Amino acid sequence: MSQDRTISRAKTVSLGADRPIRLACGVDLGPFTVAFETYGTLNADRSNAILICHALTLDQYVASPNPVTGKPGWWHTLVGPGKAIDTDRFFVICPNVLGGCMGSTGPGEINPATGTPWGLSFPVITIGDMVQAQVRLIDHLGIDQLFCVIGGSMGGMQTLEWAHSHPDRVFAAVPIATSYRHSAQNIAFHEVGRQAITTDPDWHGGDYFSHGVKPHRGLAVARMAAHITYLSEPALHRKFGRSLQDRDSVGYGFDADFQVESYLRYQGSTFVDRFDANSYLYITRAMDYFDLATEAGGVLANAFRDTTVRWCVISFSSDWLFPTSESRAIVHALNAVAANVSFVEVNSDKGHDAFLLDEPEFHDTLTGFLKGAEERRGLPVEPRKAPKP
Amino acid sequence: MSQDRTISRAKTVSLGADRPIRLACGVDLGPFTVAFETYGTLNADRSNAILICHALTLDQYVASPNPVTGKPGWWHTLVGPGKAIDTDRFFVICPNVLGGCMGSTGPGEINPATGTPWGLSFPVITIGDMVQAQVRLIDHLGIDQLFCVIGGSMGGMQTLEWAHSHPDRVFAAVPIATSYRHSAQNIAFHEVGRQAITTDPDWHGGDYFSHGVKPHRGLAVARMAAHITYLSEPALHRKFGRSLQDRDSVGYGFDADFQVESYLRYQGSTFVDRFDANSYLYITRAMDYFDLATEAGGVLANAFRDTTVRWCVISFSSDWLFPTSESRAIVHALNAVAANVSFVEVNSDKGHDAFLLDEPEFHDTLTGFLKGAEERRGLPVEPRKAPKP
Repeated sequence: MSQDRTISRAKTVSLGADRPIRLACGVDLGPFTVAFETYGTLNADRSNAILICHALTLDQYVASPNPVTGKPGWWHTLVGPGKAIDTDRFFVICPNVLGGCMGSTGPGEINPATGTPWGLSFPVITIGDMVQAQVRLIDHLGIDQLFCVIGGSMGGMQTLEWAHSHPDRVFAAVPIATSYRHSAQNIAFHEVGRQAITTDPDWHGGDYFSHGVKPHRGLAVARMAAHITYLSEPALHRKFGRSLQDRDSVGYGFDADFQVESYLRYQGSTFVDRFDANSYLYITRAMDYFDLATEAGGVLANAFRDTTVRWCVISFSSDWLFPTSESRAIVHALNAVAANVSFVEVNSDKGHDAFLLDEPEFHDTLTGFLKGAEERRGLPVEPRKAPKP
Repeated sequence: MSQDRTISRAKTVSLGADRPIRLACGVDLGPFTVAFETYGTLNADRSNAILICHALTLDQYVASPNPVTGKPGWWHTLVGPGKAIDTDRFFVICPNVLGGCMGSTGPGEINPATGTPWGLSFPVITIGDMVQAQVRLIDHLGIDQLFCVIGGSMGGMQTLEWAHSHPDRVFAAVPIATSYRHSAQNIAFHEVGRQAITTDPDWHGGDYFSHGVKPHRGLAVARMAAHITYLSEPALHRKFGRSLQDRDSVGYGFDADFQVESYLRYQGSTFVDRFDANSYLYITRAMDYFDLATEAGGVLANAFRDTTVRWCVISFSSDWLFPTSESRAIVHALNAVAANVSFVEVNSDKGHDAFLLDEPEFHDTLTGFLKGAEERRGLPVEPRKAPKP
């Protein structure tokens, strides 16, 4: 029964036809499509909805198999019946972000005005724009207030943006492994990826569609560089060390002698099958532009003044892409406005990637926080079922 | 007078014609060319020579203007009359590594057997091979024992290799910001750079010479990715933060909005004017292959058993490419064989790059160590002159 309810119901919805959204760049966008998945059942008073915001290269398939890769949902260990985000209790919504490439309006989709893919004519978007599109989706679903907004990495940026720009529509917020503004180092890594893509001759100024090619080489290099930043040195050392790939001694050549090389090449080559290069440009740019302190006039605390949102901020000790210091800055700002905030730095050596992995301390933290928030929110208390084996 | 002596005497020498070096890959190489610079004067008993080993993308122009870039020598703050490496007292030798592209034999040079550039027919070399070539240079200069071998990063690997394979020819050794084996993370970053180069269509399987092009795009991306690893997040934050480049607000496009983007692009574009893409492949490979513990049968301490070398190991607190833990592992191995070793972790927020910068604590450490070693070696004690203003 509850197993049935975890079967995803793939949906897309066209929004903003009569009332476009005004993007940060000044362009009015509408109609636009949001592709999303839901899990569980919305209760009668529409108070049990959890919005999950995805990271840079992820998508709406948070708890159901990804139709492109065939792999399980990217948070299937966390979202499902009896799991930390319990789909027997909560109605979970996960939309593909604006600018994405899994069905939501983005540079790879057809521009209705021209009948051809947007490409670089797609307006540059921001995290705030992604959230604007999500607000329209939540309106469409008839939900006044989300019980919780949760997201890691770029999903955490969206979570912060939701709580900042729509505090009355968010009961609780869980920003994970994220920051209130993209650091210089992270902008630099993104710029390397963008340069790899845009200097690939097959990119054709973003118009590769009309040339019948794709900038696979550049996108693969971008992914490889980014992938290193998702891991930690200890995790790489433990997983690969200097172990050789299918050989007893080095080959004195440029094949992938080391397992870590082979692994990275595989990461690059599989990524190009599921991700659009222009989307990569747009979404990385949105992250680079994110700076909630500047949005709030230079003082981060002002972004959350008088907030009634219940907060749980989570970081991972070995995450060097979004280090704990960034989460701590968020917590300090929330403390400065006397917000209701708990903060956990999960001890893990798995780097930024830890937020996607089966980290018991992380899952327990989330379970505990949601249970407390549920009681505060006065959601009907049902006995929790044991997770399926 | 001493100013005169710092004028470099550019030299190249052809070595190994009658007695090739046997490379680790099994190939016999000879004759081969070593391009090198010297500074100061070799004393009568040839006991005051310091060999400086350069890092990945550097060269022999350690203390004199680089003829390609016109910039001062890369360690001009450290090497010169009255400086930490005092060319009034020491005879400084800095060779371009085997595989390099500043005059020493490498993939961009002409293969005498074919009359065309080596390209990928150049044998894959190791740090040990670089040192073998340097040994022949030192033989050629009539020097039995080097007073000191000094190097940072890949130069530190050569320093370790010298002390391991020719302990009787090294009185003192200063490995700086380095490791006894390249880590999985560092191999991964190198592999990203190599993939950027080899997937550039202008690379042509390494034979770009015959096509009249160069893989500038790939090499620039490789440099950009690597450059981030040379810096620290605090240094990037202090230097650039989220400051915009020549604009008051973001441009909602893919131009270099942020100063850090503009800086990185500049680093990439200037690098391609001075460095050969194939050399980049070969030298990164040599670093990846370096593993002194494995060379010594799995126990690093065995690499230095019975060593009489005087050691000064130096690391920098914010270096995450070659973190202090790597230097500490070297020190532990040296302690295990009761070596004469001092160790300093210099407090700096400038990342790996700190070894190239004007870091007073680093310079003072080196000055003090060399002074002590000079006395131990019984070098003629001359009063030190004040540095030139």
